[in-house]
Amino acid sequence: MFITFEGPEGSGKTTQVTLLVRDLQDRGYTVFHTREPGGTSIGDQIRDVLHDLKNEQMHPHTEILLYAASRAQLVHQEIRPRLAANEIVICDRYADSTLAYQGYGHGLDLGVLRQILGFATGGLQPDLTLYLDITAEDGLRRRHAAADAGAEWNRMDALSLDFHRRVREGYLRLIAEAPSRWVTIDATGERDTIHAEIRTAVLARLTTPDTLSR
Amino acid sequence: MFITFEGPEGSGKTTQVTLLVRDLQDRGYTVFHTREPGGTSIGDQIRDVLHDLKNEQMHPHTEILLYAASRAQLVHQEIRPRLAANEIVICDRYADSTLAYQGYGHGLDLGVLRQILGFATGGLQPDLTLYLDITAEDGLRRRHAAADAGAEWNRMDALSLDFHRRVREGYLRLIAEAPSRWVTIDATGERDTIHAEIRTAVLARLTTPDTLSR
Repeated sequence: MFITFEGPEGSGKTTQVTLLVRDLQDRGYTVFHTREPGGTSIGDQIRDVLHDLKNEQMHPHTEILLYAASRAQLVHQEIRPRLAANEIVICDRYADSTLAYQGYGHGLDLGVLRQILGFATGGLQPDLTLYLDITAEDGLRRRHAAADAGAEWNRMDALSLDFHRRVREGYLRLIAEAPSRWVTIDATGERDTIHAEIRTAVLARLTTPDTLSR
Repeated sequence: MFITFEGPEGSGKTTQVTLLVRDLQDRGYTVFHTREPGGTSIGDQIRDVLHDLKNEQMHPHTEILLYAASRAQLVHQEIRPRLAANEIVICDRYADSTLAYQGYGHGLDLGVLRQILGFATGGLQPDLTLYLDITAEDGLRRRHAAADAGAEWNRMDALSLDFHRRVREGYLRLIAEAPSRWVTIDATGERDTIHAEIRTAVLARLTTPDTLSR
């Protein structure tokens, strides 16, 4: 089963991915957990280029191609082999992020983006996508607070409020297009409440693992 | 005028680009000279990922997307503004390299590659492409000799002889498709003879510069 997490900056995806991974492992599932961009040695090098604040001259087409390159490596080197071995793969951001950020956020042609994504992923789609919903204002407020406390502040965070509003609007449209793949969760709630909602959504779609340890 | 150099490894492109740039500058032209992958700060970071010998697990789709990303940045940040300012732009490798190396060399779909290249370049084509022709055997022999003398030995050089044969065959097909854009030059000759052939081909297509110094 291939599960992805999506959401605007500051939606708390990374925390929730960690909680879900631990929960599923406690239940006896073999889980592979990764993030985008990155997740492989080559992808991490690409992530460094994307997140470097010095690279503010980066053209939107360059950005899309770099995200796609990182994703191609991740899909072929890690995701496909692990799905073939019946592991659960959980990915913090995937192709929908490109459509939301570069398509809706930067206004690029969605048809061309889908072609490039198809080339990068070989057409691999998630079985379930968990969308952590938060407004652009609330999300950026959280990111600012985290950065003040020492967290990374990257090139994506530095874009305008309007950009982040378009990204959220884009996610809502993607969900409307294929509602059966998505579960939307209010990201402003308590950490444990959100985790419980995510766990319920995932367990409802999981079959019993073949190699359950108890 | 937009001029590109193409050819297999060891064809001596880099030397000939340098000679042509100096020659045109001596004649009063403003010349911008760059290389692929690279040519911008962001592109140089991408080049490092592509050429790192540790990255031998790189999937062919990742490779294509990284070349395209470097090229998108170069076209938008440097090539288009300089062509708009009536400079001569000379590029050591461009989109034809992707078709030759990834299409013919790695056997990937040429139609998809052309779509990705179109996205990266915004459709910008060279006015003239100089092809320095050498067999795979002779080219690799030269690269080995250069590496023994201390030159860089990169991930492309390390691929098989068969791969480099397919690359050369690919170039010959690309030329057959659009012969008016290409000039083929025998890269096994003397350095100065090759340079003279290149100069003749370029000057025949150049109009007198507006700001000729003498």
